[in-house]
Amino acid sequence: MRKSEKEERLAVGVDLGGTNIRVALINELGQILKECNRKTEADRDRDYIIQNMITMIKTVKEDRQIQGIGIGSPGPINQVKGLILDPPNLKTLHQCSIVEMIQSEIKEIPIYLENDANVAALAEARAGAGFGKKSVIYITVSTGIGAGIVIDGKLFVGEQGNAGEIGNMIIRESGPTVSNLNTGSLEALASGTAIAREGKNRLGIHGGAKEVFQLAMDGDEVAINIVDEVISYLSIGIANLMHTFNPSIFVLGGGVMQSGSWLLPQLREKTADLLFPSMKNHLIIEPPMLDKKAGVIGAGFLVI
Amino acid sequence: MRKSEKEERLAVGVDLGGTNIRVALINELGQILKECNRKTEADRDRDYIIQNMITMIKTVKEDRQIQGIGIGSPGPINQVKGLILDPPNLKTLHQCSIVEMIQSEIKEIPIYLENDANVAALAEARAGAGFGKKSVIYITVSTGIGAGIVIDGKLFVGEQGNAGEIGNMIIRESGPTVSNLNTGSLEALASGTAIAREGKNRLGIHGGAKEVFQLAMDGDEVAINIVDEVISYLSIGIANLMHTFNPSIFVLGGGVMQSGSWLLPQLREKTADLLFPSMKNHLIIEPPMLDKKAGVIGAGFLVI
Repeated sequence: MRKSEKEERLAVGVDLGGTNIRVALINELGQILKECNRKTEADRDRDYIIQNMITMIKTVKEDRQIQGIGIGSPGPINQVKGLILDPPNLKTLHQCSIVEMIQSEIKEIPIYLENDANVAALAEARAGAGFGKKSVIYITVSTGIGAGIVIDGKLFVGEQGNAGEIGNMIIRESGPTVSNLNTGSLEALASGTAIAREGKNRLGIHGGAKEVFQLAMDGDEVAINIVDEVISYLSIGIANLMHTFNPSIFVLGGGVMQSGSWLLPQLREKTADLLFPSMKNHLIIEPPMLDKKAGVIGAGFLVI
Repeated sequence: MRKSEKEERLAVGVDLGGTNIRVALINELGQILKECNRKTEADRDRDYIIQNMITMIKTVKEDRQIQGIGIGSPGPINQVKGLILDPPNLKTLHQCSIVEMIQSEIKEIPIYLENDANVAALAEARAGAGFGKKSVIYITVSTGIGAGIVIDGKLFVGEQGNAGEIGNMIIRESGPTVSNLNTGSLEALASGTAIAREGKNRLGIHGGAKEVFQLAMDGDEVAINIVDEVISYLSIGIANLMHTFNPSIFVLGGGVMQSGSWLLPQLREKTADLLFPSMKNHLIIEPPMLDKKAGVIGAGFLVI
């Protein structure tokens, strides 16, 4: 039953992306009561972008009582200082004290900043595929591989905020060494970048993970091998997390998993094969549910 | 400052081992106010053993108000049902409803059961090497390898109670397959059993990890190689946990680490080499501090 508006705890969630800014008034259940979207215009200066954001916040808030404002931003960020550091898609916002800037116009309301991956994890955990579950690991497989960890409805970020850097988890002794990642790390072996690299090297194609998946579905042997390997690596990564965290559910998102959703049954089976017998039946891996709304909902959940 | 006895929250901790039963009255700080120890006499029948335990609990409790009784037992256990399952060193207690049996004589006081590894982790986290830290991973390297995870002073055991089964974490693609562990798992490569196996195969000795360590200290090249490999495997395991959990501190206990405490500086260095640059300076690995008292203190902490 929905509480009367007066009792309801509300928050404003802000999803700052390289292309769009989405702002919404949400309640404790993650329902969107009012929303406002516009282009980021990331090439404009920071005052313009932040001012737009403030206007949007005021528009959805109106004269309602809110518990606070949550902002999800591409990383890296400094959560404690409320700083956006140097995300490649938001060049004019590098080193921007976003929390302070908004606070100077919207006073006496707490403002929280978190990276967009963690914000999406929080949304899926509390109002999406992980609804009602005690502990959720949300894994993003896209250009890179990362995870957001939610325990009892709250983000677990670790001592310095680096929990969930599962892309750098070592799962085999050898393998390609990519940028600053460990040799044999999960991201170097199973990310979208890794699939694209193998597609280029072994198939001579340049269409990335999507093209490799398409060729595999069309029956190309080499493409099928690449996909099989990726599934094996991902299953090791997830089994390792199951043995260490034993979360209630894994939610598997990101662009690669979106175009490879047909691989989910195979991934579940291979992962279960690597678990202690008593744990096999407890493995749950599901796709995300909230799609584009995850950003604003999760940002609001930073507050309530 | 210590609170007056009247305000102080107290608990009775029971450390049930294959050799000794230790029972103590402890306060919130983990200080032992009164204790009582005796042999388990594990070959006697269950009524005898449990009755001894009840007498010991009453002896340390006297007429004090306590919040509850915590019991640490060798695993496997069923925490929810308060059952000891089939630990090899407590044969007459297999399938024993220990919580129910004690409750029938000590009524109206909550009783909690947990496995001894988690109990030790809790003690070290709250009153030992992890004192004052937000998140602690206590790793035991002995016959096997396992971990207890403590977040904000509470055990994190995961959905089915299997969190911390890090021995089955896969860190390389090949390697010995041991009992029901994964090929290339941490425990198959770096446990006391693994070191003893390599000592036997490559040195022809039968003295286990201790003898391999002694030979390495004496300058034996083969023994030094074995030790170097073990340190490498452990450093991968700990780096993987640092990237996924980012705990405030790792506490490294267990028999193997006790006889290999001289390896700690080398282990810290090798682990740091595998971390993202920004995380290197935040790695803390320390030995445990509480020794034999960890069991009763941690058991008491199950309650308060």
